[in-house]
Amino acid sequence: MDDLDTPVAVVDLDKLELNIREMASLTREAGVRLRPHVKTHKVPAIAHMQLREGAAGITVAKLGEAEVMASAGIEDIFVAYPIWGEAKWERLRMLNRRARMRVSVDSEVSAEGLSEAFSRHGERIDVLVKVDTGLGRIGVLPGEPALRLARKVEKLPGLNFKGIFTHEGHIIRDFGSVEEVGEAVRQVAEKMRETAELIRREGMEVEEVSVGSTPSARIMCGEEGITEQRPGTYAFYDAMNVGFGVVPEERVAFSIICTVVSTPAPDRAVIDGGTKVFSSAKSPKVDGMGLIRGVEGARFAWANEEHGVLDLSSCPGALKVGDRVEVVPVHVCEAVNLWDELVAVRKGEVEAVWPVLARGKVR
Amino acid sequence: MDDLDTPVAVVDLDKLELNIREMASLTREAGVRLRPHVKTHKVPAIAHMQLREGAAGITVAKLGEAEVMASAGIEDIFVAYPIWGEAKWERLRMLNRRARMRVSVDSEVSAEGLSEAFSRHGERIDVLVKVDTGLGRIGVLPGEPALRLARKVEKLPGLNFKGIFTHEGHIIRDFGSVEEVGEAVRQVAEKMRETAELIRREGMEVEEVSVGSTPSARIMCGEEGITEQRPGTYAFYDAMNVGFGVVPEERVAFSIICTVVSTPAPDRAVIDGGTKVFSSAKSPKVDGMGLIRGVEGARFAWANEEHGVLDLSSCPGALKVGDRVEVVPVHVCEAVNLWDELVAVRKGEVEAVWPVLARGKVR
Repeated sequence: MDDLDTPVAVVDLDKLELNIREMASLTREAGVRLRPHVKTHKVPAIAHMQLREGAAGITVAKLGEAEVMASAGIEDIFVAYPIWGEAKWERLRMLNRRARMRVSVDSEVSAEGLSEAFSRHGERIDVLVKVDTGLGRIGVLPGEPALRLARKVEKLPGLNFKGIFTHEGHIIRDFGSVEEVGEAVRQVAEKMRETAELIRREGMEVEEVSVGSTPSARIMCGEEGITEQRPGTYAFYDAMNVGFGVVPEERVAFSIICTVVSTPAPDRAVIDGGTKVFSSAKSPKVDGMGLIRGVEGARFAWANEEHGVLDLSSCPGALKVGDRVEVVPVHVCEAVNLWDELVAVRKGEVEAVWPVLARGKVR
Repeated sequence: MDDLDTPVAVVDLDKLELNIREMASLTREAGVRLRPHVKTHKVPAIAHMQLREGAAGITVAKLGEAEVMASAGIEDIFVAYPIWGEAKWERLRMLNRRARMRVSVDSEVSAEGLSEAFSRHGERIDVLVKVDTGLGRIGVLPGEPALRLARKVEKLPGLNFKGIFTHEGHIIRDFGSVEEVGEAVRQVAEKMRETAELIRREGMEVEEVSVGSTPSARIMCGEEGITEQRPGTYAFYDAMNVGFGVVPEERVAFSIICTVVSTPAPDRAVIDGGTKVFSSAKSPKVDGMGLIRGVEGARFAWANEEHGVLDLSSCPGALKVGDRVEVVPVHVCEAVNLWDELVAVRKGEVEAVWPVLARGKVR
């Protein structure tokens, strides 16, 4: 590992396996299916590790990601994104022939498009209705609006109504730490239960009541009526999750190793990685552009595309040209999306080099 | 072009050609060499367009970019980055055998490493000393510190001292608009002239006095003693340059076409592109995550990885599911770095699909 040229993206296998096992056992003990979102790692080998530990299937955002994962032998895939347009409906129909596919719907118009695309071939696709429990992004509101869309899906040819799902991403946005969010998570669960109940009272089966977000996953395990969780970031974790108090820093399985290329002043060191390896992601939960491991007092102050500027004013002269620096990025999903390969290591030895096969699948 | 599935990254060839020609003629008339930074587009075909219009060579940040460009037949390449470590020195040495390479040095220790790597093979590399004229990132300070490093480079075996260079990237960071920066640009030029003069007085030749930044390029053309400019973004421009007043919005040659996938409320439309196609880059020069073309009143309020949220409160109901939306990103260099290919169009017709061959070259 010390011989790898930098910058290099490294996955610690011991930590990755621990993260995967822990979430698998948490959800198993809660009697909830686990369907990890693979956008975090985009690596089929890691998705298979999650499945071997008991995940019921995987979640993706893009059809291109689903195609990569299906090609890697994964047979149960939820596309948690509203799919629109003939080209994409056709790709989804092809996928649906070789894998158990389910897809999101959040409007009558997109339900109608999907229905027409499948029913004209005499085929059917499983559908979950997206509910907005507070993020304010996409999805129908809980209660009556969700019921109306469920009714519509139930009636349309070519669609199987399977249940409802939400992404409670507002939890980490709207609160300061994981200790503060208990009540907010319970409210999300309550909205989902009530909505499911409302739909069931109309005689429809609601097989799946699915939620998904790493920072709320543990608390959500204590909630009744939830059938599935779809966390993603937990495989690696990142500085944002550490800042929010989800896990301690040493649990983060993904880091980027850089080299100091310049120390223009005693209080400044510049590393050979910037926004093109970390991304420009910032978070109120993280000071600067990431967490520096092993250099007491160093702060990742700012970055341009190819330069990361470390503030050493608390530890002047702590780094010299040629020193290696390990950095945990703010938001791991965006960082991974910049890399063509990840190096998997165990106790400092390289065990695998994984191409990030689902990277760049924009469509 | 209207048949392309979304999201798709599009380059308008008429605008690209105009941008390339204009910068070529501005620098030609000023008697200054143009050496465009290709990090903006990462496409050899575009680099060749710049060379055909008279560029003297190209600039890159990473050896991996240099290797791609050299493989595409480009023979004059400046690696404007301090290169450190045996693996990279060896790659630079290989590049130096098939192209005219020059490289940055900003410290004695990195000059010594480079010298040792080349001189032990009896080979030589052209070197420019990096001067920090205000950005506070890397580089030696103007005047005496630059002179000391130039003297060192001049003495070390295996190195040819060719001159000095700076990146005046603080211009767009520290000022509100291009109208305000005249004096700041003149100060950069003055520091470079004085430093060059100081070095020349010691009997050393300073063949190159190189500056580089799109927002200052036009003003810099009026400055004496500058021999070379290295702007990058001008090939495409972006929302940051528009916000700073460098060019009007219609001059931007790069955009991302998305589709509205959800309109959960009359004042909100969600498009199928987020930070994984635009990047997370923000700028005080740009309101939100980019400029929306052709939808009066729409504001690109926020984005997650796969969702772009448009605020339609000034134009309620202006967009419906299935509508196509063209977006100019905040920072084009970071956006391009996310894409595997760019589609080149002219008057709405596709003329080429360019793989972004130098994308992801992190080392």
